[in-house]
Order: sequence, then C-alpha cells, then structure tokens
Amino acid sequence: MTIDPKSYAGYLQLETLLASQKPVSAAVGRPAHDEHLFIIVHQVYELWFKQVLYELDRVEAIFAGPWVEDRDVAAAAAGLARVVEILKLGVRQIDLLETMTPLDFLDFRDLLFTGSGFQSLQFREIEVRLGLKRENRLRFDDQPFEHRLIEPEQTRIRDVEARPSLFDMVEAWLGRVPFLETAGWQFQEAYRSAVTAGVREEIARISDNPTLGDRQREGQVAALEEELGRFEALFSSSPKDRATPAPGWRMARGAVLAALFINLYRDEPALQVPFRFLSHIMDIDETLTTWRFRHAQMVERMIGRKVGTGGSSGHSYLNRTVEQHRIFSDLFALATFLMPRAARPDLPEALRRRMALAYAPVNGQDGAPDARSA
Amino acid sequence: MTIDPKSYAGYLQLETLLASQKPVSAAVGRPAHDEHLFIIVHQVYELWFKQVLYELDRVEAIFAGPWVEDRDVAAAAAGLARVVEILKLGVRQIDLLETMTPLDFLDFRDLLFTGSGFQSLQFREIEVRLGLKRENRLRFDDQPFEHRLIEPEQTRIRDVEARPSLFDMVEAWLGRVPFLETAGWQFQEAYRSAVTAGVREEIARISDNPTLGDRQREGQVAALEEELGRFEALFSSSPKDRATPAPGWRMARGAVLAALFINLYRDEPALQVPFRFLSHIMDIDETLTTWRFRHAQMVERMIGRKVGTGGSSGHSYLNRTVEQHRIFSDLFALATFLMPRAARPDLPEALRRRMALAYAPVNGQDGAPDARSA
Amino acid sequence: MTIDPKSYAGYLQLETLLASQKPVSAAVGRPAHDEHLFIIVHQVYELWFKQVLYELDRVEAIFAGPWVEDRDVAAAAAGLARVVEILKLGVRQIDLLETMTPLDFLDFRDLLFTGSGFQSLQFREIEVRLGLKRENRLRFDDQPFEHRLIEPEQTRIRDVEARPSLFDMVEAWLGRVPFLETAGWQFQEAYRSAVTAGVREEIARISDNPTLGDRQREGQVAALEEELGRFEALFSSSPKDRATPAPGWRMARGAVLAALFINLYRDEPALQVPFRFLSHIMDIDETLTTWRFRHAQMVERMIGRKVGTGGSSGHSYLNRTVEQHRIFSDLFALATFLMPRAARPDLPEALRRRMALAYAPVNGQDGAPDARSA
Amino acid sequence: MTIDPKSYAGYLQLETLLASQKPVSAAVGRPAHDEHLFIIVHQVYELWFKQVLYELDRVEAIFAGPWVEDRDVAAAAAGLARVVEILKLGVRQIDLLETMTPLDFLDFRDLLFTGSGFQSLQFREIEVRLGLKRENRLRFDDQPFEHRLIEPEQTRIRDVEARPSLFDMVEAWLGRVPFLETAGWQFQEAYRSAVTAGVREEIARISDNPTLGDRQREGQVAALEEELGRFEALFSSSPKDRATPAPGWRMARGAVLAALFINLYRDEPALQVPFRFLSHIMDIDETLTTWRFRHAQMVERMIGRKVGTGGSSGHSYLNRTVEQHRIFSDLFALATFLMPRAARPDLPEALRRRMALAYAPVNGQDGAPDARSA
Repeated sequence: MTIDPKSYAGYLQLETLLASQKPVSAAVGRPAHDEHLFIIVHQVYELWFKQVLYELDRVEAIFAGPWVEDRDVAAAAAGLARVVEILKLGVRQIDLLETMTPLDFLDFRDLLFTGSGFQSLQFREIEVRLGLKRENRLRFDDQPFEHRLIEPEQTRIRDVEARPSLFDMVEAWLGRVPFLETAGWQFQEAYRSAVTAGVREEIARISDNPTLGDRQREGQVAALEEELGRFEALFSSSPKDRATPAPGWRMARGAVLAALFINLYRDEPALQVPFRFLSHIMDIDETLTTWRFRHAQMVERMIGRKVGTGGSSGHSYLNRTVEQHRIFSDLFALATFLMPRAARPDLPEALRRRMALAYAPVNGQDGAPDARSA
Repeated sequence: MTIDPKSYAGYLQLETLLASQKPVSAAVGRPAHDEHLFIIVHQVYELWFKQVLYELDRVEAIFAGPWVEDRDVAAAAAGLARVVEILKLGVRQIDLLETMTPLDFLDFRDLLFTGSGFQSLQFREIEVRLGLKRENRLRFDDQPFEHRLIEPEQTRIRDVEARPSLFDMVEAWLGRVPFLETAGWQFQEAYRSAVTAGVREEIARISDNPTLGDRQREGQVAALEEELGRFEALFSSSPKDRATPAPGWRMARGAVLAALFINLYRDEPALQVPFRFLSHIMDIDETLTTWRFRHAQMVERMIGRKVGTGGSSGHSYLNRTVEQHRIFSDLFALATFLMPRAARPDLPEALRRRMALAYAPVNGQDGAPDARSA
Repeated sequence: MTIDPKSYAGYLQLETLLASQKPVSAAVGRPAHDEHLFIIVHQVYELWFKQVLYELDRVEAIFAGPWVEDRDVAAAAAGLARVVEILKLGVRQIDLLETMTPLDFLDFRDLLFTGSGFQSLQFREIEVRLGLKRENRLRFDDQPFEHRLIEPEQTRIRDVEARPSLFDMVEAWLGRVPFLETAGWQFQEAYRSAVTAGVREEIARISDNPTLGDRQREGQVAALEEELGRFEALFSSSPKDRATPAPGWRMARGAVLAALFINLYRDEPALQVPFRFLSHIMDIDETLTTWRFRHAQMVERMIGRKVGTGGSSGHSYLNRTVEQHRIFSDLFALATFLMPRAARPDLPEALRRRMALAYAPVNGQDGAPDARSA
Repeated sequence: MTIDPKSYAGYLQLETLLASQKPVSAAVGRPAHDEHLFIIVHQVYELWFKQVLYELDRVEAIFAGPWVEDRDVAAAAAGLARVVEILKLGVRQIDLLETMTPLDFLDFRDLLFTGSGFQSLQFREIEVRLGLKRENRLRFDDQPFEHRLIEPEQTRIRDVEARPSLFDMVEAWLGRVPFLETAGWQFQEAYRSAVTAGVREEIARISDNPTLGDRQREGQVAALEEELGRFEALFSSSPKDRATPAPGWRMARGAVLAALFINLYRDEPALQVPFRFLSHIMDIDETLTTWRFRHAQMVERMIGRKVGTGGSSGHSYLNRTVEQHRIFSDLFALATFLMPRAARPDLPEALRRRMALAYAPVNGQDGAPDARSA
C-alpha cells in the first residue's frame, strides 16, 4: 500500500505506527489478551515523553543564553503548562492500565523478563534535563542507574548530563533578577527583619495555645527555632553568592531570595509571568512525583512483592524514588519563609514603577487598555 | 543501532515509533512549533483506536456464534469497560490539544490541506463495527462518507460493513433471553399492564399540578399519550418478532423487551452481569457522543467558521453528527418505559430460582460463600 | 452539642451542614436509597455555584469602574481560572450522578415533582452575570424563564439583570485598548489588507484542490466569499463605534477588533495577561456548554423521553439550550479572522516599546531578571 | 423568606446551606479573599464523607449478618464503586484547592489555629469503619489520635471502634466461601504444589539471567526463598483457621486462601461478582492512599515545613500516614502468590457445575439468554 504523504494516514505514518505492536506471547504461541494493552499503553507513554522533550527544547532555548527575553517567558510558561497537562494525562492513564488484572499480567509477564520500564531512555532523559543528578538517584540493586541502559543509550545520557539542566538555567536566571536592590533599599534586609518578626510571633502563638501539651509545645517551638536558624543561612552573604543557603538546599542563595521575591510581589506586572513560570515548574515536580507514586501503587497491585520485570526490586524500590527523585523541592520549601501580605515589606515607589508596563498609564489605568484615550 | 528484541526499546519498537513524526512545516522550511503536538496527539489517538478495535475483536468473538457462554459475558463486559476508559482518556486529551491556540495552528494549517480527521480509517471502522450504518451517516458535502478514504481503505470498510455489527449481535443475544416466559407467566403481559397504569398515574399527576399553566398541562399530557401509543407498539406481536416496535426504533421488539427485563430485574444473579454489559454499551455510546461534541467545540475554537482541513464544512458539520451518529439510542429510550420497583410485576418463584446460582444455598445464603458450611 | 467556633466542626458549621439532608422518600415512608446521593450531589453543586458567584464578585469589582488597573487583570484571570476548575469538577461530577441508575431514580422521582434544577437561583444568576440575556433564552414551555422561580427570587434576578454583566464590562474594557492606533499606523487598516489577502489565498487553494468535486468547490468558495463580506462589516466605521459588526455578532465592533489585536500580538508583554484573561473567558463558555451537554445526556439516560421533574420537557429542551445559551461565542468567531504569524502586519517599533515593561532592559534582556546587572 | 418544602430550594435546604460560610478573616476585619474557597472546599469534602458513610451503611447491612445473600453482593459492589468515584473526585478536588497560593493562604492561616483537618470526625469514622485500628495509627505528636477530637466525638469514635469493621466482615465472609473443598479435591493442596513449582521456576529464571550481576542474583534469589517461606505459612493448618498466616498479615489464613481462590477462578459465574467486590475494595484502599499522598503534597506546597494548622507536624506527619494507614494491603499482597492461568490447578467438573447458574443451559449456553429456547 503506497501512501500519499499528504493523506491523513501518510502524514501520521500510520502504516508504520500501527504495525509496531509485536506481542511476544503470540510469537511464542501462547497469546495473552492483555499484552496488547500493555504495549499500546507503553507506546503512548513514549510518544508523550517525546513531546515533553520537544517542549523542553524550546524552554531551554529560551533560558540557555546569557539572558532571557522578557517576552519569551510567557512562551516558556505555556510550554511548561503543556508538559503539566501531558503528565496529568500520564497519571490518569495508569487507571487504564489497571483495567489489566494481576492474573492477566501473569499470562505474559515471564516473557518480558529483561524488558523493563527502567530502560526508558526518554524518561531518563526527561529526569536528567529537568535536573535530577546522578548522585541523587537511588541506587538500583547497588548498581549505577545506567546499568539498565544499553549503548548508545548510556552515551546519550552522559551527553545530556554534561549540559546545563533546566534547574541550572532557572537558578542562573533567578540569580539575575534585577529588582532586589534599589537606591536605599535591599530586599534581603527588609525581608529578613519581617520574617524574623513573623517566626517570633508564630512561636508566641504556640506558647499560648492551651490545647497543646508541654511536650508538644516544646517540640514545635524547637522546630521553629531550627527553621529560624536555617532561614538565617539565607542571608549570610551577597545575594549573588552561588553557595546554597545551607545543607538540604540545592539552589544558590541568590536564586532562592529571588524566587521568594517573585512569590511575595507577584502582583507587579514584571513579576506576573515569572511567577506563573515558577508555579508551573512546581506543578511539574508535583505531577511527576504523583506519577511515580501511582506507578509504585500499580506495580504493587500487579505483582505484589514479586521482583519487577527487568529484575527490579519492584514496588519497594519505586516507592523510595517518589521523594528521593524530586528535583525542585527548594521551591516548595520557600513557603516556609513566606509571610502574610500585611507583614510584607513595602516596595519603594521607584521600584514599583520599574516593574510596571512601559506605556505607563497614570492614575486612570487599564489592563492593556488605557482609560486616558477613552 | 541494532535492537535486542527483548530489550524495552526493542519490545516497543521505539526506533520506529519515535522516528514517525514528520512535521511538514519543517520539511517546507517554515517550522511551526505546535505541529509536533498535533502529530503526537493524533498518533496517540490512532494507537487508542487500535486498542479499541482489538477489544472489539474479543467481544465479537464471544457474541458472534449461535449462543453466548454465560461465563464469557463478564469478560465481554470487562472489555467494554476498558473501551469506556480509553474513550474517556480520548475526551480528556482534547484539553491537551486545546493548549494549542488558533494562532499556533494557523502556522501550519494550510500545509495539511488534504489531511483530515475524516480520513481516519480506524475511527470509521470503530463506528461501523459498533453499528453505525451507512444510511444513517450525515452526508458530507453531499458525498458518500467513504469518498474521503482511499483504496484499499474503502474496500476494508465495505468488508466490515458486510459483517454483523456489535449492535446486530447484541440484538440477537437479547432476542434469545430465555426468562421472559415461564409456565403461566408472560413478562410482556405483566409488564404491559403495569406500565399502562404507571403512565396513567403520571398523567393524573400532571393534571393536578397547580404550578403548570393550561397550555403546559395540555402539551405534557398530549406528549405522554403519544408515549403510551409508542409503548403499545412494543406489544403487538410475539417477543421473538424481529420487527422494530415502531418508527424511530432500530432494535427488534423482542430485544427491546429483553433489555427492559434485564433492567427491571437486574438484581437476579443471572442478570447482574448482562445488566452491566448493557450499561457499558450505553457508556460507550455516551462517551463517544461526548467526544464528538468536544471535538466539534475544539474545531470551532481553532478555526472559527473556516472550512475544515480536508475541505470539511468544519464545526457545523461536526456538530450535527453528535446526535445523528449515535448507535444505541434505543437503550436510552428504555428509561421512558421503566417503572419504580414498587410497581414492578413480581417474578414467579420458579423463575427466580432458575435465575439463581446453581449451588443453591438454602435459607442461609452467602455471596460466593455458603453459610451452611460455616 | 455546643460548638467551639474555632474548632474544625464549628468553623465549617458542620452541625448545620450535615443535618441538611432531608430525603422525602424516607419522610413519606418509602425510603429510596439513592435519594441521598441525589441530594448531596445537588447540594455540592450549590456550594460550587456560591464559590463561582463569589469569584465573579471580585472580577466584576476589578472591571466595573471607568478603567481597569493593569496589575489587577492577573488577579481577575486567576479568578476565572479557578471558575474553570470548578466547572470542570462540575462536569466530572455528572459521572458520579450516573452511578444512579434510572430504576433507582424512579424510586423517588415522583416525590420531587415540583422541585427542579430549573429552579436553581444561583445557576440563573451565574448565567445572567456572565451575560446571558433574557431575550436570548430558549423559552420553556412558552413561558418566561423566571416563571420557575418564586419571590423574592424573581426580584433578585431582575436586579442582577439590571446591572452590567461580565460581557458588558469586558466589551467596554476591550473598547478602551489604547494600542490600536499610533502615529502613522492603524491596526484596522493594516489588518484589513492582510486578512483580505489571506482569504483570497484560501479561495485560490480551494479552487486548486483536485480532491474536491465541482459542487463542493463552489459551495466552499461561496462560504468564504460570505465570510469576507461579514469580515468587511468589522471595518465600516471607527473602532470606537459601539455598533456590532453585523447580524450574528453581539459584541461591539471596536471590542471585536481589540480582541483580535490581543490574540494576534499576545506575545507583547502588555498583552500577555489580557490574552490569558480572554482565554479563560472562552474556557468558561466552553466548559459551561459541555456541562449543559452532559446534563442533557444524563437526563436522557435517567428518564428517557419522559417529562422532566418540575414539568420541564426534559432532554430535548436541555439539548437545545446547549448552543442557544452560549454567551461569548463572538470570541470563538474571531478565529475565523486570524492569520498565520507570517502574514500578520508588523507592529511599529514605537508601539512595541509602549507595550514592553518599564524597566526596559536594552539588548541584554531577561524576563523579570536583567542581564545588565549581571 | 419562607420555603416551600417541595421547592428546589426548600428540598435542598439552601437557605441554611448557603448561609453556612462564615469566614473568620472577615469577622475580625481583615477579609482574605481565598478563605471562602477554603471553607467551601472543606464543606464539600464533608458532604462527600457523609455520602461515603451512607454507602457504607448499606454495605455493612448486607455483610453484617451470619450470611450474605448472593444477590446482594452486586448491590454492595455498586455501593463501593460509587465510593471509589467519590474518592476520585476528592483527589481531583485537591487540584482546585491548589489554585490557592501559599501567599493567599497565609492571609488567614493564623486565624484557623485550632481548626484542623485532623478534627474531621467523619473522616476518622470512615477510616475506622473500613478497618483502620487504633493501634495501627501513627501517633500524632505522641498523643492518641482522638486527642484532636472533642466530646461527644470521642465517644462516637469509640462506639464505632467497638463494632465490626468492613475489614472484619469481609474477612468473615471470605472465611465462609464454600467452594474450597469438594469431594476428593482441596484447593489448598492443589494450589500449594502449583505455587511452589512456580516460585522454583522464577528462581531458575533469575539464576539464568545473564544481565544480572552476582550480588543482584543472590539478593533476588534470597528474596524469593523468603517469599516461599512466607507462602508456606498460608498452609500450616485448616483453611478455617482464624490465625493470620504470618507476621505482616492481618487477615486470617482461611480468608486469604478464599481471596486467592476468587482471584484465580473469577471467571466462574458464582465468583464474578465477588471478584468485582474485592476489586472495588482494593480501589478504595488505593484511592484513599492517593488522597493522603496528594493531601501531604498540597500541605507541603502551602506551608512548606511550617507546623500545620491545629498544631500538626504538617507535611512530614501526613507523608508517613500514606503507607501506615492502609487497611487492605493483604489483598495487594495476594498478587505475590498468583500464577499464570496455564499453571493454575484445574477445577473438578462437579465444582464448576456448582459455581454455574441454576438454569443450567447445556452445551449451547447463552449469558442470561438460553440457546435451547432459540
């Protein structure tokens, strides 16, 4: 059947695509009905992974250089929002895979022995490009993770690891935010006094809480004192400092402060889109984590405590990656140091003006529209 | 790169699969970012369609013969439940496609001119195998629908049309339900008197409703009288009669009565699984209809009132197929003729016993478990 | 049980909330299991409706005055995004209601006679506040829609109708967009010539399409000529003109042009948030329409062709409201007049500068961040 | 406003329901916009919890007695399926709550101090009624969990704890399954030899896997030997034995064997509905676990490492409950001991006949339908 490249089927390469399902159970003469679903579901995942990598290409192109164009941050945010939608579909798709019962899976599971989800090169690449570092990976059966990959896949991963990740680029971009210092005002000083006051108040509130027992009260106060200590670490030096604030943080001090600044003053026009961009990064971290969690659940349901296909240790290994393989947990930790709007340091008027739109409607303002021309 | 057939990548044919995205915008030198999403989304749809067809294969194998094994109806129902899950994912996936804006689509839309969703052979096959008949299709630009398909696709569709559809098989199966007549009791007589009484009561209720105006009351009463007329058509002859009850119905009278019987007495063990099977058929009809609806919405959002790719009349054509292409609306119409449990004719004890499980626990009964052995 | 106002239960008024389910079937001595679900599902809907109205309050407060603050459009967009999430949950919730079968519903349906979803005051208020006008409502049994409401509900609706709707406010805001004219450049002129050229090209493409028959080709060309006529109507006068472009449009000409401008140049910093705001309005229109569609489906499944509770004409009435009660279809119609980026008129440099951020990084730019300070 | 009890608003108690939102931020004169969402979302959760409890009532009524009617297991399964739908909506609803940002939450968080999700009596009751035992709960700040509840809530929980839980009832029901022994055949013997052979094969497969290193191989083999040991524990005595098979199990040996039997032979008519019932129990366990996981994620996003409202230790505490508070993990562990259909012991013909439907179509069978009458 020859295919017109401009036909629907030719355009989508359907002849190839729809001939790519090769159940081994049928090949060895003991056809298992549900293997077809297993193949299709994993192929769909791989197509989604390809799309995720494709969207990351554009985001990286925007963030890779020595500066980021303001106008392009919205496109990057839209790309990440699309990645979030894909990951949500991916999580939802596990419900579909669970229409396969353990008994149905067992009918072909032994035939898959060496094939395993651990071998998805694209998924590994997504992790690495987002910023998962080799040394933070949970070791798998005491072997380096790429042991499961074959050549030239291992080389591919090493090449990708050698490039800056999205984490690196975002950290660098945050480190360049120009609004944290202005004549006579420093965000880090203004903020430091405000947070310290805030945590002190929280401690007072706990001390006065009659519903708490003594041990509880002491434990919580101690925890907050500890937080305050960690918080102080944010300020020990210049905001351009590349060091992380303290053990447990991965992001450089200056970037952490800038992310806090964006979260606190997200209503300023210059920060609205950056705020959305950071939110979508957190959505990705959160949805990927949910995916890992649901995947671990599904594996437990499917094989119980058996050893996974590909020789993985199955459910328990997967379950431990859920927290371990998170990448942007620093952004979640920021919430610890936020404060109510009422306690937030005021911005100098000159700074607010710098963060406004250029057409600068005075007094009578309008979203893009301008009342003065009305 | 040679591929180990038992590796993850070899098993899923990833080398082929991931090389099957060929954006034309790049090929003609004006790369449009979102074409990649467009291709991936449609390829994923085609993979799902393949899975749906695969599940239909098994359901048809179960229902194709002169009889259906009791024990297999559950497997058929599970297959349909999986199809429902796939269709729900398909509907959900439209949200993802809508992350592409009209402006992004326009960047490559003209290049797709002759490629069109109307040319998805697999989707056409799903419709035909479920039971959509050529003569019930909305004509497209006044041409028979397969005009959009090329050879050997047209031949394939004609072959499929020549086979019994799921609609046909389900109708035949329903026509053989053995419980509608038993010594001294006929479902159709018992039921006829019960329904007639029910509709009469409904008419009385409307006549007494003080919140209705005269015109309303008359209109509603007239509508019910008309329903009663249509209902009477169910009974003009033997339940084995192959004729449809009246114009507007597609299913044979005997099958309609059996479907009503299953809905009314679904609690009897012999009817529990058949009831679920019928429910999933309705779920499929409903979800496919929702898909068409969301697809029409998405096309309107993407191209407004423009003519669709492939020369379709776009949104308005699609919108009209939503109702027109439904297949199992007879099953939805049944609800008109159901009645509250309290008004339902009682089953003869002998019949109930025939519809129980064979192990026949007496007095002390237990779901699979049996209290007598306790 | 006295409730501490600061306890969880007191804060949420649970004593009241959880005592508010009063099944009538139990009250009249024929308890029907599924009535409880019916009540809970509708109560949850009403709680969501209250939240939607609450979010609309804030959006209206932002848009009600003689101008809109730039910085507040993001908050309005976030409010609308939340409304979209609520509506999506509402659609999803219909799946839950469908776990009730027709037979289960019949067990208590007659007791509900005069209660009907048509009487949800809050839902009516949402429709009116978004912009659904009395004269555009489908008449229900030939009676004005508020016939189903009682006093003081009718008065409430009339009061709301007397206020400007979101449609009105958005139209006014769009009418004030200040960027459509600048020294020596008028968007409407630049755009008019570009679109005219675009449609002419589309007509040429159709005329050259060998896969189309003569009748098809003629029909499609005629349709496009007609579109071009409708398009010309956008330009017959000043962009500040309050008249609608032509029959079939509801929005004023100037507002339509501004919405097109925002869609075409959404990448400019000043338009990014307004673009998102308009997108969320479309999401609301789309999701509300899907809700109506799924509601009509569910009613058909539940009662077939019976007359609805509250005396409504049921499924068929609901089905006709799906398209009829849309509010923002003008925004969808815009897509007809968009064009590929390549064909889009260039913006004068001075205008682009007015639409940038004030802090004006030169050359080395960065999203919020600024490379010059690096 | 007096309410007609048969009006929509009266029926749903809307006057009360819609007056039950009392934001404290407004009451103390510093209104925080998002508190309204916070209240509504939690009220909706409580309405869903009430529905879940209501569905559990019916399931318990069916399972509480000395035996379970076969015909009622389907109704119980339908009730559980509805609970699953509710829980899925509950998980999905967290996405909506996440439209509230940490900054928005901080505007009213301090006012909630003593109110906390830990105080939801209904959620605690759901956990207890499903089968979560006091001694298996994670201690919260070193206090018994009901410390957070007030009277009469503590009494209510103690009463519920004194009743048999769903876990208890299901275990008892499984313990009565009558099909595990029949003349000359014992499931436990047939199954024991089949599983032992299966695990031996698995060990052989690992030993032959060339992609594994020595340490890996040894580790995996050791794990399987251990599994085999645990498996042997299933058989040390009579299937009616009430003891659990081994440490780590909660369910009695006989019940575990019956659940395995149902999973292995689910295609027999008498086991189809029980199989579905067990699957829905697993769905509930899984979805409730996902809910806890998403809740912990959301709390981390909202307050970082701060101490939770109500003085809880926040994210970290919640995260540890995810696995700790599971109830039916025994059912998931079964998958470890399943085997491919090909290795499954054959059922004696007499037993299969006992598990068929009573109307006993011979040879030509039909799902409810009967070919003999055709």
